[in-house]
Amino acid sequence: MSKKDKEVIQKLKEVGIDITKQIEKGNDPSYELPVRTLNNVFFDKKTKTIRLGDRKSTRQFLNIAHTRKFMQTMLVTSEIRKIIEQEATISIRDLYYALKHTIEGTEENSFEDQSESDPIIEDLECSLNLLREELHLAASSKGVITGKLKIKDGKDTIDLTKMGSGGWGVPSNVEPEKIEIKDLDAEYVLFIEKDAVWKRFNEDQYWKKHKCIIITGRGQPSRAERRFVQRLNKEHKLPVFALMDADPWGMYIYSVIKQGSISLSYSEEKLATPATKYIGLTVSDVETFKIPKEVTIKLNKLDVKRLNEMKKYEWFKKKEWQDEFDLMKEKAIKLELEALSKKGIRFITEKYLPQKIKSNDFLP
Amino acid sequence: MSKKDKEVIQKLKEVGIDITKQIEKGNDPSYELPVRTLNNVFFDKKTKTIRLGDRKSTRQFLNIAHTRKFMQTMLVTSEIRKIIEQEATISIRDLYYALKHTIEGTEENSFEDQSESDPIIEDLECSLNLLREELHLAASSKGVITGKLKIKDGKDTIDLTKMGSGGWGVPSNVEPEKIEIKDLDAEYVLFIEKDAVWKRFNEDQYWKKHKCIIITGRGQPSRAERRFVQRLNKEHKLPVFALMDADPWGMYIYSVIKQGSISLSYSEEKLATPATKYIGLTVSDVETFKIPKEVTIKLNKLDVKRLNEMKKYEWFKKKEWQDEFDLMKEKAIKLELEALSKKGIRFITEKYLPQKIKSNDFLP
Repeated sequence: MSKKDKEVIQKLKEVGIDITKQIEKGNDPSYELPVRTLNNVFFDKKTKTIRLGDRKSTRQFLNIAHTRKFMQTMLVTSEIRKIIEQEATISIRDLYYALKHTIEGTEENSFEDQSESDPIIEDLECSLNLLREELHLAASSKGVITGKLKIKDGKDTIDLTKMGSGGWGVPSNVEPEKIEIKDLDAEYVLFIEKDAVWKRFNEDQYWKKHKCIIITGRGQPSRAERRFVQRLNKEHKLPVFALMDADPWGMYIYSVIKQGSISLSYSEEKLATPATKYIGLTVSDVETFKIPKEVTIKLNKLDVKRLNEMKKYEWFKKKEWQDEFDLMKEKAIKLELEALSKKGIRFITEKYLPQKIKSNDFLP
Repeated sequence: MSKKDKEVIQKLKEVGIDITKQIEKGNDPSYELPVRTLNNVFFDKKTKTIRLGDRKSTRQFLNIAHTRKFMQTMLVTSEIRKIIEQEATISIRDLYYALKHTIEGTEENSFEDQSESDPIIEDLECSLNLLREELHLAASSKGVITGKLKIKDGKDTIDLTKMGSGGWGVPSNVEPEKIEIKDLDAEYVLFIEKDAVWKRFNEDQYWKKHKCIIITGRGQPSRAERRFVQRLNKEHKLPVFALMDADPWGMYIYSVIKQGSISLSYSEEKLATPATKYIGLTVSDVETFKIPKEVTIKLNKLDVKRLNEMKKYEWFKKKEWQDEFDLMKEKAIKLELEALSKKGIRFITEKYLPQKIKSNDFLP
């Protein structure tokens, strides 16, 4: 068992020991946990990530409104310990099923459905300050990666320069205890929104010519892709560039990569990469690169609504972003990455991106 | 350029030559193409796949209802030829953007949106009897694979026994000219519906202990996963077992793997794997494996509606399937793969599947 696993088990044990002590003293057992509602979430200017504030709440066994959740927390804590001891990793759905049972002598189930067990996992994550991956719970992961590095994963060494047209499927758990980064010979990371565009960059071996790493989360990236990019940035000082559609959705995904999301605020310090820069697409690219207007798309009402909301976000308050949003509204257009194919199918890998990076033409 | 690419270019050229000849003769140029509407789709008992019938229609340039599509077909045919000559592969969205332009001297666009270019691609695929991958068009692919084989892809040889916890991301194009299967030492293929379950099988190195290949399409598989499994079955005679949720959706996905879908009927001979067997889950497993009833889920109205529809499908007419559907309706339950975690987190890899395979306990 790894040192980290032992530490985690110790933390889980302490949850139980603390409760037992309270019971032995004849007290109503209780535990504290951070409040995860919106009014305890804020953008931390120091870490530059979305974070959870200091507010705590207490859950008491003898408070009838808390009893069920109290019991569920004990079940989850104890099961996770067993899973780590078995050196296995399971999905949060597995955990729900493993723990679901009818309580003896009653008609009551321990959990009615997964919407009851998921928040308990989140409680544990934030009260113990651990990622769910450290609790051996696998989130879904759907991205692929290639580039100038090797991965040591268990007994296997995977050369990400030799993945053919496929790429390595990013696993759920990319923690340092599990995934070792080796022979890194890259100068930056390119985080690409769309799988089809990633395939263009991979087919053209962009990562080879430009000494970099290319990764996609196939839309909104999962935790694993974000965590892995954070590690490349924090541990190896690689700059990170995001390549997204020039539309509110692409820009929102960028903001999640950069400072995180409200729903995962309790883990964003370990998932977000505040150093990320937005390399494209932008509406100003249309002029700079003479992109024909036929391949731009008219903004719809929903886009304008989202733009107006995003303009108010603290992390989009920088002048460059406000200008970009204003320009998008003024021109009333958005633009997909594939639109660059109008200029030639390899325009994006051979002209557009090299020029943007060379001229440091990015949004903060 | 590969031999296959040269053949494809020849076919594309012939489309143009044929039209030119007609024009030179002073005729109204026209071409024939297979009808792709539902009434020309059938289940072929010989190939055991869903197929397109023999009905054809003719598209004429001077018929005002056909002119636009005629022009679009010529544009697409010519662009695909260029792409193959550039030895590139692009997405169907790229193709749409590459061809979108305002026709000189008019206000008219060649294509208004992608819903105009996609059917033209399908026309070409079925009239030339080629897969879109053979036309260098990349469909999305999202699956992962590991197991006892190696892949030769361009200059890279990828050892699928050494992928760590990740797996190799299945690329869009797995045609023999692109992807070579090497050092195959597997006795069967396990096609797993869910990514989380695939991760369980990969973590437990099931493919190593049981000499097999494990693949998931993460839900409804894409063309590439299906095509690759077909190759393993047809070229290498590997049996294929599908492991799905015991619900109408899981069973429907199985039927797509096995005999194909109506929407891709024109390509199913190259995508479907009629030899696939349904290894689980079934409602009868609940009794066989003593699965507690708390982890089963009540059928809802939509499930029952789907079951009744599926009972009528020709390919589900076999007694074993009719019995399974009847049992499901009688018990009024469905079951997810993760429910087996109730019996222990490795129950599925250590007990359930080995026993099912050993006792040949599958549905046809």
